Amino acid sequence: MLVIMAQSAEKESIENVVQKIKESGLIPHSIPGSMRTAIGVTGNTGAINTDKFSELPGVIRVIRVTAPYKLVSRETKPENTIVNVGGVKFGGKKLPIIAGPCSVESRQQMMEVAEKLKRSGAAMIRGGVYKPRTSPYDFQGLGEEGLEILSEVREKTGLPFVTESIDAESLSLTVKYADMIQIGARNMQNYSLLRAAGKTGKPILLKRGLSATLDEFLMAAEYIMSEGNYNIVLCERGIRTFAQHSRFTLDISIIPTIKQLSHLPIIVDPSHPAGVRDKVIPLSLGAVGAGADGLMVEVHPEPDKALSDGPQSLYPKQFEQLMDKLSIIVPALDREI
Amino acid sequence: MLVIMAQSAEKESIENVVQKIKESGLIPHSIPGSMRTAIGVTGNTGAINTDKFSELPGVIRVIRVTAPYKLVSRETKPENTIVNVGGVKFGGKKLPIIAGPCSVESRQQMMEVAEKLKRSGAAMIRGGVYKPRTSPYDFQGLGEEGLEILSEVREKTGLPFVTESIDAESLSLTVKYADMIQIGARNMQNYSLLRAAGKTGKPILLKRGLSATLDEFLMAAEYIMSEGNYNIVLCERGIRTFAQHSRFTLDISIIPTIKQLSHLPIIVDPSHPAGVRDKVIPLSLGAVGAGADGLMVEVHPEPDKALSDGPQSLYPKQFEQLMDKLSIIVPALDREI
Amino acid sequence: MLVIMAQSAEKESIENVVQKIKESGLIPHSIPGSMRTAIGVTGNTGAINTDKFSELPGVIRVIRVTAPYKLVSRETKPENTIVNVGGVKFGGKKLPIIAGPCSVESRQQMMEVAEKLKRSGAAMIRGGVYKPRTSPYDFQGLGEEGLEILSEVREKTGLPFVTESIDAESLSLTVKYADMIQIGARNMQNYSLLRAAGKTGKPILLKRGLSATLDEFLMAAEYIMSEGNYNIVLCERGIRTFAQHSRFTLDISIIPTIKQLSHLPIIVDPSHPAGVRDKVIPLSLGAVGAGADGLMVEVHPEPDKALSDGPQSLYPKQFEQLMDKLSIIVPALDREI
Amino acid sequence: MLVIMAQSAEKESIENVVQKIKESGLIPHSIPGSMRTAIGVTGNTGAINTDKFSELPGVIRVIRVTAPYKLVSRETKPENTIVNVGGVKFGGKKLPIIAGPCSVESRQQMMEVAEKLKRSGAAMIRGGVYKPRTSPYDFQGLGEEGLEILSEVREKTGLPFVTESIDAESLSLTVKYADMIQIGARNMQNYSLLRAAGKTGKPILLKRGLSATLDEFLMAAEYIMSEGNYNIVLCERGIRTFAQHSRFTLDISIIPTIKQLSHLPIIVDPSHPAGVRDKVIPLSLGAVGAGADGLMVEVHPEPDKALSDGPQSLYPKQFEQLMDKLSIIVPALDREI
Repeated sequence: MLVIMAQSAEKESIENVVQKIKESGLIPHSIPGSMRTAIGVTGNTGAINTDKFSELPGVIRVIRVTAPYKLVSRETKPENTIVNVGGVKFGGKKLPIIAGPCSVESRQQMMEVAEKLKRSGAAMIRGGVYKPRTSPYDFQGLGEEGLEILSEVREKTGLPFVTESIDAESLSLTVKYADMIQIGARNMQNYSLLRAAGKTGKPILLKRGLSATLDEFLMAAEYIMSEGNYNIVLCERGIRTFAQHSRFTLDISIIPTIKQLSHLPIIVDPSHPAGVRDKVIPLSLGAVGAGADGLMVEVHPEPDKALSDGPQSLYPKQFEQLMDKLSIIVPALDREI
Repeated sequence: MLVIMAQSAEKESIENVVQKIKESGLIPHSIPGSMRTAIGVTGNTGAINTDKFSELPGVIRVIRVTAPYKLVSRETKPENTIVNVGGVKFGGKKLPIIAGPCSVESRQQMMEVAEKLKRSGAAMIRGGVYKPRTSPYDFQGLGEEGLEILSEVREKTGLPFVTESIDAESLSLTVKYADMIQIGARNMQNYSLLRAAGKTGKPILLKRGLSATLDEFLMAAEYIMSEGNYNIVLCERGIRTFAQHSRFTLDISIIPTIKQLSHLPIIVDPSHPAGVRDKVIPLSLGAVGAGADGLMVEVHPEPDKALSDGPQSLYPKQFEQLMDKLSIIVPALDREI
Repeated sequence: MLVIMAQSAEKESIENVVQKIKESGLIPHSIPGSMRTAIGVTGNTGAINTDKFSELPGVIRVIRVTAPYKLVSRETKPENTIVNVGGVKFGGKKLPIIAGPCSVESRQQMMEVAEKLKRSGAAMIRGGVYKPRTSPYDFQGLGEEGLEILSEVREKTGLPFVTESIDAESLSLTVKYADMIQIGARNMQNYSLLRAAGKTGKPILLKRGLSATLDEFLMAAEYIMSEGNYNIVLCERGIRTFAQHSRFTLDISIIPTIKQLSHLPIIVDPSHPAGVRDKVIPLSLGAVGAGADGLMVEVHPEPDKALSDGPQSLYPKQFEQLMDKLSIIVPALDREI
Repeated sequence: MLVIMAQSAEKESIENVVQKIKESGLIPHSIPGSMRTAIGVTGNTGAINTDKFSELPGVIRVIRVTAPYKLVSRETKPENTIVNVGGVKFGGKKLPIIAGPCSVESRQQMMEVAEKLKRSGAAMIRGGVYKPRTSPYDFQGLGEEGLEILSEVREKTGLPFVTESIDAESLSLTVKYADMIQIGARNMQNYSLLRAAGKTGKPILLKRGLSATLDEFLMAAEYIMSEGNYNIVLCERGIRTFAQHSRFTLDISIIPTIKQLSHLPIIVDPSHPAGVRDKVIPLSLGAVGAGADGLMVEVHPEPDKALSDGPQSLYPKQFEQLMDKLSIIVPALDREI
């Protein structure tokens, strides 16, 4: 259920509604918009009697939300959410490009690549320090040392960074360093981690699971948001299908679908579905054409020596080419880069 | 196997090679390129002794083709194939846009929509007269009457048209009227129809099957080409996956993959994967961004009254908007419309 | 719509109803059951006024059929259809096992294997003479010569045979020789071929397409049945999914689903989903456990020399082992072999 | 790499090899078998020089393990692993049947259903107390209170129980009460949880992820085993495909594949792929036919009132019917129940 307050509603009216919701054994979620405040109501097991809220002072309308996702729904909040990550804004007219290696491997590697990425126009840096690897014997990331390296890179370049958390422990460390926390595809339904990410209040980059339906993807965001954290950027990264000519099948049709159903920004990771670097640029341009609010691209100074995902990492030179193309195409789509 | 002739090779040398191939019980396929002639060799069951061909006059190289597809392979013919359909060229710098209703329903319907499509910049008209419908009780198309309507529309507008054939009988009629023959997704592995389409020599629009792998798609084109018909345009139209938020999952990563492996043009049908018209424009721009050589879009003068595929058909007004957007974006991609 | 006649209804009453249906511009399909006659009505574009039929003499009830498939529906015909193929019955208590090589390669091959299969308890022989192969350069089958070989084998062993048709031409020949005609997975939506198969009146073995939904599968059977041919045996043969550890994913849950929705028998081909012979026996027993009405298994006298599907063909010795196991398990499932 | 010790090898020889492995910077994993001891070696980043181990006293062979999974591989341990859960053995001749409701809802519910399940022949009880639900607003389980109820049920019935853990916190509580810990499909690649489960030493029931490949499934088991816990039972529970006629597509062909590649037992959950109770019995018999080492079935005393998964839960009466059928079929498959 959603209680819509009048634009003119005063703070006391809003607090009064919140209080009445709590008294009914329900949970209020205030969602301040640019025009008006809405109050999402969750915690009910059956239908709620809307009458007792619709006549409270300052209330203009009470809406039953029909979708299983409530807070992430555009019914609840009609205007786009803008997520601000250290000054970089997702969901507005501008398309931020996040770039960097799959894994942070060394201070030198990160400094070298970050300088180049900044010069080419990247808005943010990425780099994994806790890696969810298919094999327990593969490189699992540098951990806190990697977080320190990323922080130094940020200081040097001025670019904020995103990095993945994989459990409560890594999250509690990551939150101290990172500007944005990534929840990876394999953990998209790790509800315990989603709740914890919600509690941090930090911007979250939520990647779609390999076989997540649209509803499951939005419900994962709902888990984070139900803890009071509205700073979520969704990320399509390819789904698992019978097609083996690419590593995953990039599902660009989820972009317009999400824009219709939710107020959250959605970006695309073209590197994982590509699997090989040759396809990263076409998929990037395809994603931007379909309306993506940004990209996250893997770039490595020496892909052949990468400890993970080397084959799909662009050379810095190729990233420069991608940015050159985007600088022409993005304005043609009436957006900015 | 592929026999590459010198640029300077004379006609007699080529004929001599062709003769020797036949004498060995194999089948020669001359593939004239802009720079040189190549002769594809098929019909072998095991490895061929290349020596007896490599030293014939005019031969500069004999290549074993490793991919299962031979004639459609870029190994066989390095430069892009340009397919000319009544003056409309697929595979070059220009991106032709094919548009029209799912089914030809009446003379009036076709005339009305075709005029509008022409004004908006469509290069070709589409319209089904033999419809492969899931239910035997659904509208199955106007048959030859529809072909006559399409021919009149061509005369009036000057736009060539493509229409689908579903069996030997409909093919033998279609070939008399149409500029290009479509083989639909459900018939992509109807090898009998593919061979017959090959024998017509007409330009063929080959749609990818709902669950066709890359290899199966190219092998279907190989069937057509093995009959001597090199005028093939491939068409990605979405695959069947677990995702239910769109009718099919548009697989844009097949575009760069096909461009790498084959010399054939590949266009995209954004209407079937979209399933609803709201998503047709984003998917169209996504496809073009990923490198598609053209689009085929369903447009109906009155989608609500359409006998098939109404919900995914654009209004003529929306098609105009799509063309407006393409006219800005396509040049930004360094191509023309 | 479905008109149910009283058990006691005389022939004239039935003919009268049929006449009235025709006069309304609709198509009647008489479906004689063991207890009563039902008359399926198709050809309507909107809802039919049932009143004008419900009060005709001999009519006890008029039912609106809600599923898109009408004639294949259990609503239309509650009792199981028994398909009789030269004395072999599908859909009853007994589970017929069809066995034989993928392709008919020679008289000797077929005679040798057929004798062994008969001794092991096979009820019918299979063998392809028109092969839908992914590559145009692969062995395409012996054609009519193969049909003659199969007929000789039948004469020698007394076992009826099934073989695939791939187009109008091969169908017109096959129908003269075969006891049962197979429509392969790749042609499941070749509606022209389905209609032609319907017109033959011969028993049809309809294989599920690689990505066919339940509805599409039943609608393909509906195409055949709408031409008056009720002798259809459905065949599950694995679907295309992301899983690569088997050639296709055998979908046993379609067995109980089809038994609930349709009166048609459904058998399983365990060889194609297995892809390798090691898995054929476990999949066979799994299919039988899930309720399959029979099996069709690839067996070759010398799998290593097979011209097609060698790796998934059982050795005759292994087929014997399979039959031994079935002879214990099938009775435990309260059926017979 | 795998070091195979002679049957006659003494304890000192084994310890010497372990020591030498450690000295080389690698990690030894002793795997005592009934016939001989093998020592798995992990932690290498490149190829290992096998020479320095093959000539140590007591070593009979050093094998390079080619599969990405090492400890779970049948190459490493040729004989079946028997997992003993409070006296119930998985992986032997007997097929244990686990049954119970999706969620523990109350003491009364569990007592009532457990008594019935015991009488029908269930070997173990299941019931979720930490539920990974798609929606944050759905019932999330009783937590520790549920564990206490399950413990009482065990005391009363003598049946051991399995229940799911979803994070470090729930695991640390569960380990104190449960006989076996389930890692659910959504957490199959929650590597942090897998490692923690490995450290408990408790029997683990590892469910396959919705889109997990064979390799990913076995590698998830490898994560657990790499922490020294060899008590793992794998569980197939259906994969996500385009097919919508069942909730998930039960992939029975993974059963013989896993038996070939790994020494671990594999059971099947027929309830989740079925989605509706009508299909649970056919899928159960299909799974057993294909070689499953056991089943885990959802049964609820009053499915209509269940807080989760009601539609796919059997009535106790239906479970009794299932057990009756299994008591005939399992012996026909030369196994015991």
